[in-house]
Amino acid sequence: MRFNEIIKNLPVYEAGKPIELVAKDFKINPKKIIKLASNENPFGSSPLAIKAIKKAAKRANLYPDDSYHELKNALAKKFELKSENFIIGSGSDEVIEFALGAVCNDKLGILTAGVSFGMYGVYASHIGAPHFKTKSQKHDLAELLELYEKHKNSIGVVILCLPNNPLGECENASEIENFIAKIDKNTLIMLDCAYMEFASFKDSKKAINPKKLVRNFENVLYLGTFSKAYGLGGMRVGYGIANDEIIKSLHKLRPPFNISTPSLACAIAALNDENFIIKTLKNNLQEMKKYENFANKKGIEFIPSYTNFITFKLSHKHDSTKLCDILLSRGIILRNLKSYDLNAVRITIGTKAQNKKVLKELDGLFS
Amino acid sequence: MRFNEIIKNLPVYEAGKPIELVAKDFKINPKKIIKLASNENPFGSSPLAIKAIKKAAKRANLYPDDSYHELKNALAKKFELKSENFIIGSGSDEVIEFALGAVCNDKLGILTAGVSFGMYGVYASHIGAPHFKTKSQKHDLAELLELYEKHKNSIGVVILCLPNNPLGECENASEIENFIAKIDKNTLIMLDCAYMEFASFKDSKKAINPKKLVRNFENVLYLGTFSKAYGLGGMRVGYGIANDEIIKSLHKLRPPFNISTPSLACAIAALNDENFIIKTLKNNLQEMKKYENFANKKGIEFIPSYTNFITFKLSHKHDSTKLCDILLSRGIILRNLKSYDLNAVRITIGTKAQNKKVLKELDGLFS
Repeated sequence: MRFNEIIKNLPVYEAGKPIELVAKDFKINPKKIIKLASNENPFGSSPLAIKAIKKAAKRANLYPDDSYHELKNALAKKFELKSENFIIGSGSDEVIEFALGAVCNDKLGILTAGVSFGMYGVYASHIGAPHFKTKSQKHDLAELLELYEKHKNSIGVVILCLPNNPLGECENASEIENFIAKIDKNTLIMLDCAYMEFASFKDSKKAINPKKLVRNFENVLYLGTFSKAYGLGGMRVGYGIANDEIIKSLHKLRPPFNISTPSLACAIAALNDENFIIKTLKNNLQEMKKYENFANKKGIEFIPSYTNFITFKLSHKHDSTKLCDILLSRGIILRNLKSYDLNAVRITIGTKAQNKKVLKELDGLFS
Repeated sequence: MRFNEIIKNLPVYEAGKPIELVAKDFKINPKKIIKLASNENPFGSSPLAIKAIKKAAKRANLYPDDSYHELKNALAKKFELKSENFIIGSGSDEVIEFALGAVCNDKLGILTAGVSFGMYGVYASHIGAPHFKTKSQKHDLAELLELYEKHKNSIGVVILCLPNNPLGECENASEIENFIAKIDKNTLIMLDCAYMEFASFKDSKKAINPKKLVRNFENVLYLGTFSKAYGLGGMRVGYGIANDEIIKSLHKLRPPFNISTPSLACAIAALNDENFIIKTLKNNLQEMKKYENFANKKGIEFIPSYTNFITFKLSHKHDSTKLCDILLSRGIILRNLKSYDLNAVRITIGTKAQNKKVLKELDGLFS
């Protein structure tokens, strides 16, 4: 078989271990397993969204309305823009794929912070596009700009993760605007704001305003998702916001029916449940403090987080893989960041009860 | 903005008109609209699948188990293969994208019948890959082979649509095997069997056996879907079957969580409802005859169909666009094949009641 050279060099997919197998291996009741590894909403989803999924189940045979006009109109209303400013993806992940596919090639790559969402690099590698990273792990805008100036002929997309997964930091919106103004107009600037709801709730200075950015900058693409604050990670719905021209180009790569009929229905419903979002954001802030207090007490390094997770950077006394393995055997799944070359653990902020159990186990391991 | 040259030349996306807007425009009760345009299952979905979606709704916040091991195991059991022989896509469409992405480039393209599923050409165009087509509209295996021999250095994937959408014809499995044996081992042969359940029920000579093909040929990829006979078009689940090496390569391009949590659950459930499939297939054959009788009575040319649709090729006396427009104004949506350069209409076989109404309207238009 002839495969493209790029394919040959990509890593082979290793399936993660399903929860029920973890449960079986360690003889744990699967219902008692606490998974705080994927930044899913610990409160589930909005009851309105769940109701919409159940109602849509009887239309499972029917393709979704591929114009997605109702969802786009609802988003346009929320963000005070036109429906032509939106594209819907199977998670914001798919919008990243569209953007890199539309702009990048083997000579034109991406620029990101030293440690940021792993899929940027993966999608770039699918195209054979170069990936420039800062030496700083966190977003250092000055260093990003310096690297951009140095390699601008090889950079098609600058990607800022605001706030940053998996580290948690977030630049101020005003700083981001200043940064954008310094980037050439022919370079796409993608602001991945998957966790923005958490950041702007904690500190309004972090709040990116897509309307303002899209109107002022012709080269900005804002990404949002229903997977995090909206509690619909399993439904695979995200969106991109940009000027009409960018959206038109991205649409050229969108496969028809890229989200499911219940996904379309529940995303529309979720936008109408402000209470669920507020409950989610309040719990997140309150419970985050417990992890911060714990880390301070134990002398664990952590980055103040503007997301729904907290990342503990471990000292040489602890190994993140060992730590995660021990916790796994006790039915607690956290995200080991070894794959990011970090001796660190990312913990999704859970419910009060979940966090209590996790902190109790951690207390024993950091004594 | 710098976009890739390929993107600039792709057509701009035009959203289809949602049913409720059709209803509004023509002042028709949307519930009375009959849509037989997208080959959806007129009986809906298996009750087991609908139940699974409803049950999964409360897990909408949770990403699906990305190994898809339960679904793959169920498919492996059904097809008497190993789970390593399967890849799951967001519809079989996404598996087509993986395959073309893994093999094609601007020098290595696809070979298809003159008229076949439109997305083959679209996905090839995303990569800038050449698209070779036979002059014959239907699958002419001799002509396909001739064209293959002539351009084999520029053909990475040979795609056979079995049975063929949008025409409906289907080659015998034995002829397909003979054809495959004549294609070089380094060329991928993709058998898009989205409608195979209908073909093999009508005539067992059409039944492609993925187990046999995958074991005998290292370069065959079989595509199946839950969208048609299984009645889950809105859930976006399809699959590819091939030897481990091909599957490994395709997996390299699969984004994580490419299907939704309810989609995973309902596909597994649907495999357990043989009764629903039988009911679907029996109705399809019985009702198809009514369209064939109608066409014979009216002197309308049609291709004997091995799918869940029938395609009427119109004479110069009728124009498919006008015909579809008139029917639309009466609340009946059929598929105009003008975009395939055909003066033809594709009609999904509906329920007894739906077909009765459609045939009554057609009777007036062909009198």
